[in-house]
Amino acid sequence: METKLKQVIESMHEQKIDSMIVLKPENIRYLTGFRPTSSSVLILKDEPLLLASKIDNEDASKNSMVNLEVYKKFDDLKNFLEGCVGVENSMTVETYRKLEDFKVVTTEVVETSRAVKTDWEIKNIEKALEIAEKSLLELDFKGTEVEMAAELEYNMRINGSQRPSFETIMASGARTSLPHGSPTTNKIERPILIDWGAVYNNYSSDTTRTIIETEKQEEIFDIVLEAQQTAIKSIKPGIKCGEIDNIAREVITEYGYGESFIHSTGHGVGLEIHEKPSFSKNDETELQKGMVVTVEPGIYIKGEFGVRIEDMVLVENKAKVLNKIDSKLSV
Amino acid sequence: METKLKQVIESMHEQKIDSMIVLKPENIRYLTGFRPTSSSVLILKDEPLLLASKIDNEDASKNSMVNLEVYKKFDDLKNFLEGCVGVENSMTVETYRKLEDFKVVTTEVVETSRAVKTDWEIKNIEKALEIAEKSLLELDFKGTEVEMAAELEYNMRINGSQRPSFETIMASGARTSLPHGSPTTNKIERPILIDWGAVYNNYSSDTTRTIIETEKQEEIFDIVLEAQQTAIKSIKPGIKCGEIDNIAREVITEYGYGESFIHSTGHGVGLEIHEKPSFSKNDETELQKGMVVTVEPGIYIKGEFGVRIEDMVLVENKAKVLNKIDSKLSV
Repeated sequence: METKLKQVIESMHEQKIDSMIVLKPENIRYLTGFRPTSSSVLILKDEPLLLASKIDNEDASKNSMVNLEVYKKFDDLKNFLEGCVGVENSMTVETYRKLEDFKVVTTEVVETSRAVKTDWEIKNIEKALEIAEKSLLELDFKGTEVEMAAELEYNMRINGSQRPSFETIMASGARTSLPHGSPTTNKIERPILIDWGAVYNNYSSDTTRTIIETEKQEEIFDIVLEAQQTAIKSIKPGIKCGEIDNIAREVITEYGYGESFIHSTGHGVGLEIHEKPSFSKNDETELQKGMVVTVEPGIYIKGEFGVRIEDMVLVENKAKVLNKIDSKLSV
Repeated sequence: METKLKQVIESMHEQKIDSMIVLKPENIRYLTGFRPTSSSVLILKDEPLLLASKIDNEDASKNSMVNLEVYKKFDDLKNFLEGCVGVENSMTVETYRKLEDFKVVTTEVVETSRAVKTDWEIKNIEKALEIAEKSLLELDFKGTEVEMAAELEYNMRINGSQRPSFETIMASGARTSLPHGSPTTNKIERPILIDWGAVYNNYSSDTTRTIIETEKQEEIFDIVLEAQQTAIKSIKPGIKCGEIDNIAREVITEYGYGESFIHSTGHGVGLEIHEKPSFSKNDETELQKGMVVTVEPGIYIKGEFGVRIEDMVLVENKAKVLNKIDSKLSV
């Protein structure tokens, strides 16, 4: 049995879980190698079993490392469950209610395992990031927000990305004060805030660059960069995630922009664009070697502009920044 | 108060629900006009309230038709709940368990309301479909599967789509036997199966075309087309969705390919790419005027090829096919 699968089943046993229902497509992908496109169920127990819908069966039989049967209906899978049944936090109430005959507990064993990446996973993330950065540098940085987003996404596809890892954020001028501004048909003007990512082998990248022009923009940019660099320098195994958020926030607060930093400092990235851990106040997770996280402070001044700088970081003995392109792009 | 909102609150009251927590972004978009990009909560009661995260607040204050406050943490929203609390079927177990002090029932009032589209919604769906079809016809139909997918998605962006409505399926040659084949760097050969869609104003389109070449492919194509046309002709208000699935399936079964039609016959489309109702065996929903659904039978012969034809249909006194391009494309 594959190491990751073995470890997850061990964690289940430590939590006194005898069998587990895995529904989240990313979790199924992580443990079997097969990514479902429609309802599929992975049953974890000493002999794991993948139930894939007919529509996915040809694909699953090629890619799954786990024994495979055709999935027909939810009730059938009850035959495979035993003892205390683990379910993901993300299971829907609708499905949860179908399990009332069982002793059910929620567990994060798969998500916790996914937070620490294997070398192979890191290579895929690096490849996704390489595609994303190369595709940005190929841009002309002219036309409308929509045209730039279209070109960026086209470049990523051609360079090997399966899809954008999330809806591309491409905002320019005063619209950069929207942290999640979708592209419009406005002509590009400075600053330009671009938050984009590629997907390679189902692994995502996530980066933000803000291209600035005026002195005021540069002043804010430098504060955000200082916050980001200070947070990155603090990264090491054992430090709590909430502490990293705090460190970035303190820098921005000292400059008087604390109220304008309206989101958390970062998040894990992998098979999902947001996964464990989270650089937010209440996350008590201690960083471990092998985690891949973003560090992305920002300052948003309503009616004027916003700046965010986001890099991807691999936790080793200290932070290893995975991005290759400059923080301050001159294009 | 907006009509849709009023109707949904009436349906809640009929189900003896005093207040409801709406978390699904599409449901929030439907009822408020604002589409969250991060955790937001809509509380439905006589005086509805939208709680949007800080990151979305500027956007929400521009677009929400419902009173707005900043969303800080889940526990705060308990102050706004009263009596019997309705939740969506899609609520996660994690969130559900935070509500143990309340009497909680699951309800589909919002999804049921969404199944019947307003004229404005239909216009948006038609516009998404127009963008998708125009973008396909602009293609050169050469190069690799990935190149064709990249161009198609680029064209859709430029023509006004926010994003592909789902991961574009672009499979050619023997790979068309995978109903959900992702594009590869294989050179395009016939048949080509393309399943793609655009998003306009958050409303999706969904269409499939298979471009065939040989006589055998044409034979299968004609069976699939007959199944699809027979199903479309049977569409009228009052008929059960399971019956439409049955009608399409019978045609294909008569020709001896029943085992090769490995998915359901169609589904509702709107703010989500798959929504109510479903043309599958067990869906007892009766069609109503204003529903927008896909009709998409297919035959997949492993190791040889597959054919699927998918059109979007508006239910009026009979079916009105919304697609304008030919079923049998000659390109």
